[in-house]
Amino acid sequence: MGKIYGLGLGPGDLDLMSVKAHRLLTGAKHVAYFRKAGRKGQARKMVDSLLPEGVIEFPMEYPVTTEIPVTDPRYNEILSAFYAEVAAHLRTLVESGEDIVVLCEGDPFFYGSFMHLYTRLNEVVPVEVVPAITGMSGAWTATGQPITWGDDVLTVLMGTLEEKDLVRHMDDTDALVVMKIGRNFDKVVRALKVAGKFDDAWIVQFATMPNQSMCKLSEMTEKVTPYFSIIVVHGQGRRP
Amino acid sequence: MGKIYGLGLGPGDLDLMSVKAHRLLTGAKHVAYFRKAGRKGQARKMVDSLLPEGVIEFPMEYPVTTEIPVTDPRYNEILSAFYAEVAAHLRTLVESGEDIVVLCEGDPFFYGSFMHLYTRLNEVVPVEVVPAITGMSGAWTATGQPITWGDDVLTVLMGTLEEKDLVRHMDDTDALVVMKIGRNFDKVVRALKVAGKFDDAWIVQFATMPNQSMCKLSEMTEKVTPYFSIIVVHGQGRRP
Repeated sequence: MGKIYGLGLGPGDLDLMSVKAHRLLTGAKHVAYFRKAGRKGQARKMVDSLLPEGVIEFPMEYPVTTEIPVTDPRYNEILSAFYAEVAAHLRTLVESGEDIVVLCEGDPFFYGSFMHLYTRLNEVVPVEVVPAITGMSGAWTATGQPITWGDDVLTVLMGTLEEKDLVRHMDDTDALVVMKIGRNFDKVVRALKVAGKFDDAWIVQFATMPNQSMCKLSEMTEKVTPYFSIIVVHGQGRRP
Repeated sequence: MGKIYGLGLGPGDLDLMSVKAHRLLTGAKHVAYFRKAGRKGQARKMVDSLLPEGVIEFPMEYPVTTEIPVTDPRYNEILSAFYAEVAAHLRTLVESGEDIVVLCEGDPFFYGSFMHLYTRLNEVVPVEVVPAITGMSGAWTATGQPITWGDDVLTVLMGTLEEKDLVRHMDDTDALVVMKIGRNFDKVVRALKVAGKFDDAWIVQFATMPNQSMCKLSEMTEKVTPYFSIIVVHGQGRRP
């Protein structure tokens, strides 16, 4: 029996990958990764320079991404069938004795896609999750300011939440991280303004990557990248 | 001019340190680290096997830890003078051309002690922060369950908060992490019960370390470790 590794790659800079992830990746015989149909895949692109010669690749192509709203029952049905299908393939491989490295951007258990395979495979075959530096940690490090001090409360929000929920949570926290902001950008900005946190917000794009950029949200001039964009508001807690 | 590296060591397992941190640490000429007077220091102990022969050590001993309450004005005065003093020493070293690695448990900008040096040195000499896997990421990975799904809200709380604030935040989140729980354990447990999250809470001690242990909080029989203990409640958000 082989093993499936849910391998956290971290925020983007390969130098920030863990020693363990680096070893597993450079020694991999099989790698699997999610991607949008017709694309190379973000995680796959990230590790281009590290994959060993002759590695066997298993791209797992989403049958749907944003073509159907997540609230449509068909969305869940289609994705559920897709996860079952790729999980079955991975299971067969593992049962034949092969180890498989599944590439995960960021930290696998933190809003990751791998979790959908994990819940389908964990009680069936050996699965190990290798944690990693989160994208948000890459983002707050990029701003050059600590995210939380002393007793600060940190809240992590998805831009996909309803505006009133965004406002309520933004209003009742010290430090704040907002992810999935692409098509929710205007809503997130409105909520930050109502909560009085807009002027203190930073936006970081492609954190830790060669094209990293960041600025105060209030000074942003260009359009936001739909992917790899994170908003950060730093806590201002107790400090000697 | 040398450089100060605020080096995130991650949650404890050295194999989870970043490739960059590993390289900087094994090539270090100077290492500095905080410790309680008379102790070896947690961060220093963690890297025992990695420090190069002949490395020059600068232990930074807290003049006070829990002997004075943090609300006492003397606490801030004493610590402030201490940080100024050690920062001055590091500055002198860097200005003489030396690189210094400052050991940081977890991620330096996430409730880290290094931040107190960072704010005193960052605009004076070159400082680089190397992010790392947080202790909480080590903890939720240890539980074998994803921490956040879909639109889940994640809230990170310190056990040092007032009970009513703990309850309010616990009540209005999907996923939850509570740190600094040592002497606040009973208060945190009461707040979790009021918020209806006690039965779903896990406690992880020494996450990713050889003596890692974890259990449902409701099934805990022994006394909690004052250090390296993290409470986790997993989000149950949307999933296909």
